[in-house]
Amino acid sequence: MNAVLHNDRLLRALLRQPVDVTPIWLMRQAGRYLPEYRTARARAGSFMALCQTPERACEVTLQPLVRFPLDAAILFSDILTVPDAMGLGLSFSEGEGPQFARPLRSAADIARLAVPDPEVELRYVLDAVRLIRRELAGRVPLIGFAGSPWTLATYMVEGGSSKDYARIKALLYDQPSLLHRLLNVVAQAVTIYLNGQIAAGAQVAMVFDTWGGILAPRAYREFSLAYLAQIVAGLTREAEQRRVPIILFTKGGGAWLEDLAATGCDAVGVDWTVDLGEARQRVGARVALQGNLDPAALYAAPERIREQAAQVLTDFGAGPGHIFNLGHGVQPGVDPDRVATLVAAVHELSGSRLPGGNA
Amino acid sequence: MNAVLHNDRLLRALLRQPVDVTPIWLMRQAGRYLPEYRTARARAGSFMALCQTPERACEVTLQPLVRFPLDAAILFSDILTVPDAMGLGLSFSEGEGPQFARPLRSAADIARLAVPDPEVELRYVLDAVRLIRRELAGRVPLIGFAGSPWTLATYMVEGGSSKDYARIKALLYDQPSLLHRLLNVVAQAVTIYLNGQIAAGAQVAMVFDTWGGILAPRAYREFSLAYLAQIVAGLTREAEQRRVPIILFTKGGGAWLEDLAATGCDAVGVDWTVDLGEARQRVGARVALQGNLDPAALYAAPERIREQAAQVLTDFGAGPGHIFNLGHGVQPGVDPDRVATLVAAVHELSGSRLPGGNA
Repeated sequence: MNAVLHNDRLLRALLRQPVDVTPIWLMRQAGRYLPEYRTARARAGSFMALCQTPERACEVTLQPLVRFPLDAAILFSDILTVPDAMGLGLSFSEGEGPQFARPLRSAADIARLAVPDPEVELRYVLDAVRLIRRELAGRVPLIGFAGSPWTLATYMVEGGSSKDYARIKALLYDQPSLLHRLLNVVAQAVTIYLNGQIAAGAQVAMVFDTWGGILAPRAYREFSLAYLAQIVAGLTREAEQRRVPIILFTKGGGAWLEDLAATGCDAVGVDWTVDLGEARQRVGARVALQGNLDPAALYAAPERIREQAAQVLTDFGAGPGHIFNLGHGVQPGVDPDRVATLVAAVHELSGSRLPGGNA
Repeated sequence: MNAVLHNDRLLRALLRQPVDVTPIWLMRQAGRYLPEYRTARARAGSFMALCQTPERACEVTLQPLVRFPLDAAILFSDILTVPDAMGLGLSFSEGEGPQFARPLRSAADIARLAVPDPEVELRYVLDAVRLIRRELAGRVPLIGFAGSPWTLATYMVEGGSSKDYARIKALLYDQPSLLHRLLNVVAQAVTIYLNGQIAAGAQVAMVFDTWGGILAPRAYREFSLAYLAQIVAGLTREAEQRRVPIILFTKGGGAWLEDLAATGCDAVGVDWTVDLGEARQRVGARVALQGNLDPAALYAAPERIREQAAQVLTDFGAGPGHIFNLGHGVQPGVDPDRVATLVAAVHELSGSRLPGGNA
């Protein structure tokens, strides 16, 4: 595999090494706010068809890089492909979000779960990773990702999105050992899956703990954080003679940044409800930080977006270890020109801020 | 007015005075989880008819007190009655939440807003307060409430519930002075409205900042906290020869408890994502704390509910200043028997914990 990488800002920043300008990529940078994405989605017929066809997933992954000088590509896929590969039967109904045909409803359902072989049941993802790496040709690194065990379990038990999390919370409070059994098998599946992505060419691995923030502190540590740490311990940390950095992100997890940093990951994602300067003080030199502009700031006028980007850069301060991102995904209603404004602002402002950049 | 109060645990705990057992009430204790509420709601024809008819609002307010030995009643109403009284035209469509017929769409819309006279435009609420006080006959104190200016402004600008808060965030980032103008008039309206409730007989005032948690820290302080402080400064603090305690609650505001405590309020509500012991250490002796059981714990079996209640009591620890509550409202799918279990557990466990109760 071609290990030449023309833009290694992301990898350097994730390892807290000096960079010329602050690298930026955006969660959901390939997504509905882009008209070319909506066209590709319509052509594919369904969201799953888009994910499951490597050529289409590759096309959509690269779309934002054509428009914006982003410092990373992120695999186009969905965190729920893993439970789908475990036999739950995933579909996306228009406007209603994900649905599992066979949600987990009993201890027997959980006992039946097996860890999928990513080169078999999730081969379409690994093929997409290989294809994207080839098409990227070393322009920027490729980020692979998976959902956290807690977050995946939430969907697997609820059967889809939930407002009140009645089923998973009842399981958590009433049958914690059964929930641990579920989380263990999902953590193994996620670890093997991410290692498969890394073997296929993913140069960074990110774990999205979208629903960790709905937990009370003790429950978070027991049912989400512990499995994030287990995944970190099980991941391949070097490939193509390079360190493969790991990013952990618990949305709404601002209170637990120290715990996340202590897992052994390389970087922690931070949502916009946390002051990035305070976050940095709290985690110290242990990890890099990724974030944390309010995604809704992209609805503002260009000059305001520049001001807000400058504020995030100032909050982080001088020195290495910052990857600019939103605090959550790009929202579907955002004008792509606003994203262009943001990417340009981050590169320009971080490069001119100090002699020698933010190194 | 009859100032005799047979159960003053809530008022004592809010003022950090000793109590025999920890007082408990629940956000949305009068609500859809109760079959008698659903009957009353169906009889009224609409949610607004329930709010706007003092006899019906009184009936619904008292329903949970018939079932459970709660230590407070909370006025049955909605935070959006204030914007409705300001001319926005509130309605609730089945299953879709609140809708304003005339949301704020321009600077002119905001300039036109006037502060309603609560004895005129919100007379139905104050009549309900007077009626509830009469019917309560001093059994427990009555809590009055309002929404925070930021939370109300969110609905007024979006026109209803929102997923991405595009309009209010664009206003915040692009036209902060226009948003301040809106927040100022709403803060005045809320202050006068709560003072009206206190004059009518509310013995505690609580401000619900449901959406403060969607703000970045600087934005929270500027657009939500500042107006909470303005309201606290403007409220009547004594009535019927008693202190009228003020409770502030920002959902998702765990990072800002010190700021809330510094407003001059008497108590701060805490959601379940915060460790109550740590919260207490942070705010010290300045305020009482209200919370913070995960509302989804009420889906668990009775013995688990008792354990979780015991954990919250242990987290808070000995000494005065704790009002037991959920971290958010009772969810509609909860079995009322589970609420009975919780109320009994809190009284029993807090009373037996230490010789002399938690005083």
